[in-house]
Amino acid sequence: MADRSADRPPARRPGGRNARVRAQILAATTELVARDGIAGFRYEEVAELAGVHKTSVYRNWPDREELVVEALLCYADDLASVEDTGDLHRDLADFLMGIAGGLETPFGRTLEQAIQPARQSPAVRQALARILDQRVAALQRRVDTAVDRGELPPVDSFFLGEMLSGPVRLIVNRGMRPFTRTDAERIVGVVLAGIRATAPHV
Amino acid sequence: MADRSADRPPARRPGGRNARVRAQILAATTELVARDGIAGFRYEEVAELAGVHKTSVYRNWPDREELVVEALLCYADDLASVEDTGDLHRDLADFLMGIAGGLETPFGRTLEQAIQPARQSPAVRQALARILDQRVAALQRRVDTAVDRGELPPVDSFFLGEMLSGPVRLIVNRGMRPFTRTDAERIVGVVLAGIRATAPHV
Repeated sequence: MADRSADRPPARRPGGRNARVRAQILAATTELVARDGIAGFRYEEVAELAGVHKTSVYRNWPDREELVVEALLCYADDLASVEDTGDLHRDLADFLMGIAGGLETPFGRTLEQAIQPARQSPAVRQALARILDQRVAALQRRVDTAVDRGELPPVDSFFLGEMLSGPVRLIVNRGMRPFTRTDAERIVGVVLAGIRATAPHV
Repeated sequence: MADRSADRPPARRPGGRNARVRAQILAATTELVARDGIAGFRYEEVAELAGVHKTSVYRNWPDREELVVEALLCYADDLASVEDTGDLHRDLADFLMGIAGGLETPFGRTLEQAIQPARQSPAVRQALARILDQRVAALQRRVDTAVDRGELPPVDSFFLGEMLSGPVRLIVNRGMRPFTRTDAERIVGVVLAGIRATAPHV
């Protein structure tokens, strides 16, 4: 749907003006959810922060929950990447540093609180499940390459993700010490060695 | 301090009536903190639930935060044990099942939320640190025995605890699937194998 209420010149990139307005709204929502929580942010403030008319927010997302869910998914897109430098250990340590960095932002903290089961609506819960799927898929692609190269036995990426990110979340959320590159390297080292040592065919 | 306001017959076990009253108050506090959160529970309700006079609560814990902290520490005492059946893998898997069970209770969930750094008062933060120390110490004792028996290279129990309980917390808190014995066994298997494989002298 075209948004005639936006007061800026047409964008030249694919998607056009409405896509740009939507992106601004989602970014503003992300910021406000981080500040006020999923239940606390207000449409008026989203519009103000996004620099658009309030009607643009209501027209694109008549349902408040859908707006939160899309904002969460947008945020997840930015995070769900695992590089391939050819060095699996390094790439996974980078991945863990990225997770830790994400958790340390205000939005990351809000997301962590949203993860508490009792606080989730079904829609938010579903969005979190999709975010998780994206991350697991990104990890799976990197791991598949490593398996092809003979660097790792075949492994369940869902389990690998839990083994890698569980300790990261624990250290960051506990907040008793900073999460460092040494932590990331150590976690990756133990988990990869453990997976190699316990693989059925090794 | 003797508690003359309690209306029950003197207890025969060590510690006497006041010890029993204190234990009842701490148990009631634990239950109410689980229901209403650290900031939300009320002294009147603690007294009612504990079956004691309100003055008993105020006299023993004039400071609200000290009451919470002692209740947290009491709860931790119950949890901080790692058995020694002679089978390290099994004992650690039991330990993880215990952590998962604790997290699944209402009180465990409240504790998890209290762990979010932004929500902690210094006293609660200190109590959580002591709870953690107790758990790490319990794990350390079990691991030391395993090291003595040559079952494991020397290992930093703090790090081992993070590697083991991080994935447990992640799986339980995410709430997307139940945490099972198979999960516990798998986590212990990978972590122990990884620690053996990455030890300097192995």
